Amino acid sequence: MAIQGNFFVFEKPHQLLRAVSSKIPTLEDGEILVKINYATLCGSDLHTFCGLRQEPCPTILGHEIVGTIIELNANSLLNDATGKQLAIGDTITWTVFASDPHTAVYNPDTPQKNDYLYKYGHRQITEQDTFHGGLASHIILRRHTYIRILPKELPAPIAATINCAIATAAGAIRLAGKIKGKRVLISGMGLLGLVCTAMCKESGASQIVVTDIDDMRLTLAKRFGATEIFNSKMDQPTDLTNTADGVDCFIDMSGSTEAMETGVAQLGINGTAVFIGAVFNQRKLQLDAEQMIRRILTIRGLHNYNYDDFSEAVDFINENWQKYPFLDLIEKEFSLDQVNEAFDYAVVNKPIRVGINMDLR
Amino acid sequence: MAIQGNFFVFEKPHQLLRAVSSKIPTLEDGEILVKINYATLCGSDLHTFCGLRQEPCPTILGHEIVGTIIELNANSLLNDATGKQLAIGDTITWTVFASDPHTAVYNPDTPQKNDYLYKYGHRQITEQDTFHGGLASHIILRRHTYIRILPKELPAPIAATINCAIATAAGAIRLAGKIKGKRVLISGMGLLGLVCTAMCKESGASQIVVTDIDDMRLTLAKRFGATEIFNSKMDQPTDLTNTADGVDCFIDMSGSTEAMETGVAQLGINGTAVFIGAVFNQRKLQLDAEQMIRRILTIRGLHNYNYDDFSEAVDFINENWQKYPFLDLIEKEFSLDQVNEAFDYAVVNKPIRVGINMDLR
Repeated sequence: MAIQGNFFVFEKPHQLLRAVSSKIPTLEDGEILVKINYATLCGSDLHTFCGLRQEPCPTILGHEIVGTIIELNANSLLNDATGKQLAIGDTITWTVFASDPHTAVYNPDTPQKNDYLYKYGHRQITEQDTFHGGLASHIILRRHTYIRILPKELPAPIAATINCAIATAAGAIRLAGKIKGKRVLISGMGLLGLVCTAMCKESGASQIVVTDIDDMRLTLAKRFGATEIFNSKMDQPTDLTNTADGVDCFIDMSGSTEAMETGVAQLGINGTAVFIGAVFNQRKLQLDAEQMIRRILTIRGLHNYNYDDFSEAVDFINENWQKYPFLDLIEKEFSLDQVNEAFDYAVVNKPIRVGINMDLR
Repeated sequence: MAIQGNFFVFEKPHQLLRAVSSKIPTLEDGEILVKINYATLCGSDLHTFCGLRQEPCPTILGHEIVGTIIELNANSLLNDATGKQLAIGDTITWTVFASDPHTAVYNPDTPQKNDYLYKYGHRQITEQDTFHGGLASHIILRRHTYIRILPKELPAPIAATINCAIATAAGAIRLAGKIKGKRVLISGMGLLGLVCTAMCKESGASQIVVTDIDDMRLTLAKRFGATEIFNSKMDQPTDLTNTADGVDCFIDMSGSTEAMETGVAQLGINGTAVFIGAVFNQRKLQLDAEQMIRRILTIRGLHNYNYDDFSEAVDFINENWQKYPFLDLIEKEFSLDQVNEAFDYAVVNKPIRVGINMDLR
């Protein structure tokens, strides 16, 4: 059955994405055809669009996606990560990568760093390899993709963000260690920082101090559970906490070297810092090794997430999507045909997210 | 019973230590009087002696000590860390700190960072508080000191190093995580680095690459299990390993910022760095945050050690002291009366350790 699909091609920065209509390839063993319901533009999509990062082109951008299964390869019985059998009509989220566990370097702690990773929204379009990004009518999920079936009542704009922002935030919380009763500092109140704030709140942090350079985002952070907000443009770093013994945990989602340096300096004895945001080339971080030693600090970097983080993210959203104003974070919605307007809007207005609703015409 | 003891007083850098004879105070509840058999001069003793670090003075330096119990406070039944009852005549090693578990900030993971720590070899002498350092005939062990009884056949010069160098190396190994089958890089082949090398060997590391700026120490490292040695003055940092995917674990005992930066740059995916050596003020460490994130690195500082590390150190030495040339590391021995000569010799010749043998006259 030859279904016709369409997608938008990104060829190079600052050039309009181009609509293409194409026959969807026949599914291989273990593959799943998904009709995309909704995609959100992640910060990394915008960075690629603006030329701040490079992907193999031409490509189909978009990896924060939610969709509905419309075809399963007939030779396979496929289950989601909890063991439920997948069926046509299921609304699903999936890991941004397909990671083959049979490679030599495979490590279940970090499947996202495996060899030969298949990464949705980050691949070159070839004749044999297409329908692998979110700015499209359909996507083909490859073997070794972890999948979770979602409840039908979960709004698509929230569901779309699970497999990137929410799962990465869950990874940050995992690396941060025990949060209950702890004092946490989080810098950068984009989607990752806001989700992290809510996760710390749900995990029972005693104090959640957050920083950003944007007062609007700081106000938003209060609604996600922040107990204290600081504008790092205006406030002195020494203002951040009222406790002489510092914070237990610092999570950087801002990517700013200044924020990372300030955050590490706020850590008390046994403190842990988690770096997530700084995935771009910039000046070196300057850290005081003596203080890292005397205060017995731990600093951990995390890129993407593993399967546990992905499952934690799904569970967290299922339990908490009505408790925090997640829907407000998708500030404007566009149809797939308006994808170029969506990029322009996102670049100019820097909303937390813009949404691409595939059901809009 | 008023025993007379003697100790050497350090008053200020580059000044001769002064012999004092004094009545040993009556033991308080839970205290133990130990006749010191042997002390080794640790790098930090030399730093204090040279004015590179400050201790509250006047003080009794020396904290790498082994001794024999000669009196136990009659009101207490005291056990060692394995539950064995302590008795007069036992040869013992003990934690360099006494840490009261009943304080508000006490954390069993890091007892060495507790409030009101009693740290042997680092305290001011007062009328009420003396006999607390190693350059003395006797030492009084205070309550909340962890103790291990040692086998009589363990040579005193080796036993003396357990409670500082060996225990801290055990802490580094704990923070490094699983060593079996892993590629390890260790910088700095002083006592800590050499012990770490032997511990990695015993833990089944697949490759143990070590660096130092001294060829003699590198040759020594081979005898402690190093599989590859590099003189970091001569060799390019890129020479360090033959594997494209880097090392799994890097431990810095050198304290050199260059060594730390080079080591972190050698870490592969999921790599862990442990910083121990840099306990002095120097230029900031320059690290690439993007690489820490993309390679999912962990960096951990450690100062001193906890009880588990101390016990691991005792077990390690009991099992391995004959397997590696530990005795060769105490390059020269002095009597207590020759303590000033011992310092001079250590400062000029930079041996791994000099020993102070209290039984020498």
